[in-house]
Amino acid sequence: MIESVNVIGACGRVGGALSARLRERGVDVREEAVDLVLLCVPDRAIAEVAASVEPGPWVGHTSGGTPLSALEPHARRFSLHPLQTFTHDRGPEQLDGAWAAVTGETEEAVAVAGELARALGLHPFPLADERRALYHAGAAIASNYLVTLRRIAGGLFAEAGAPPEALDPLMRRVIDNGFQLTGPIERGDWETVERHRTAIAETAPHLLATYDELARLTAGNRLLQGTSP
Amino acid sequence: MIESVNVIGACGRVGGALSARLRERGVDVREEAVDLVLLCVPDRAIAEVAASVEPGPWVGHTSGGTPLSALEPHARRFSLHPLQTFTHDRGPEQLDGAWAAVTGETEEAVAVAGELARALGLHPFPLADERRALYHAGAAIASNYLVTLRRIAGGLFAEAGAPPEALDPLMRRVIDNGFQLTGPIERGDWETVERHRTAIAETAPHLLATYDELARLTAGNRLLQGTSP
Repeated sequence: MIESVNVIGACGRVGGALSARLRERGVDVREEAVDLVLLCVPDRAIAEVAASVEPGPWVGHTSGGTPLSALEPHARRFSLHPLQTFTHDRGPEQLDGAWAAVTGETEEAVAVAGELARALGLHPFPLADERRALYHAGAAIASNYLVTLRRIAGGLFAEAGAPPEALDPLMRRVIDNGFQLTGPIERGDWETVERHRTAIAETAPHLLATYDELARLTAGNRLLQGTSP
Repeated sequence: MIESVNVIGACGRVGGALSARLRERGVDVREEAVDLVLLCVPDRAIAEVAASVEPGPWVGHTSGGTPLSALEPHARRFSLHPLQTFTHDRGPEQLDGAWAAVTGETEEAVAVAGELARALGLHPFPLADERRALYHAGAAIASNYLVTLRRIAGGLFAEAGAPPEALDPLMRRVIDNGFQLTGPIERGDWETVERHRTAIAETAPHLLATYDELARLTAGNRLLQGTSP
């Protein structure tokens, strides 16, 4: 039973949401004599902050991309990565419905991380420490590059005189429809793809390589439809 | 006032939703003696089907990428492109909240297309015929490549032993948070980016070029944050 937690970095986006949620759930969030110390600090600060924590309690970090070895010298250690993007504009409800990757080197460590995840309102799944770079790359592609897709598309819309925000209901529906592929590539309509390429080459030539790479991967997915994850 | 419409292609995904919505709104959807003929047919069939329509009523198509000239010989012509992805699993409610690009060569044509869009429950915006390839490229990037991002990321998750569906609440929140950029590139954390590259190079080398192109564009957006659309 985790009854007391020291959240280091509680003023940050992640630490703020996590400490608020723990308080909501009746966990004693304090600085001394705790069951568990949770590091919600920037990745590059984890090792230094971990080294400054008195050994004894469980020590965990909330980074997706940082190995457990960053938590030296602690043996009772784990990581819990909330698979969510956080903003200061929202509170602990940001955690609702999100998943969390939990990593530990012992069954007990995975159990502690899983208990903490559930207390936070997250759905935990186990992640092997040596697979986390691949996992984190996937998470970054899905979330950060989604921002970039929207900016690329919004920029083309602005050039065309169309309102960029008109893209948002379209993008939401793509997710709601379970990422069903529609559009020219799905139809094998390469004439339309070629018209896109010409228009991009004229107006935003720095985007052509990205358009082409993604077209190639989209066409590959089209051929695999129904068999890919 | 548009009182009667002939929807050609009413069995398709788009035509089905549009004809159901017109009926809901009290428009007489029938085949003969109509105010307006709406072509909801594949892009490459538009010219042939338009040529077979007896001149007289307004004639429109619903393609994003096809110029108005495909509607020859009709002079009372327009296009109305619902900026949405459609599935047979849903009905006319798919139109709610979506935008529509309307194109015409006269004020009257734009007004007719706008009236039809509003009758359908769409928010119309004007689009110049010569800008439509750029507009349509933006729409395809935002929607079709979103599917591809999810498949790429889901594939990396599967390789890492993580559940691909865990990405979905993350991607929804990125949209809900107004596409705020978070993550390693936003933090200028190039060590993490390099770890992603190494993991992708080992497991899915065919994705490395796309990862790099999007990283480059994301980093550019980072530098522009607050100024880009």
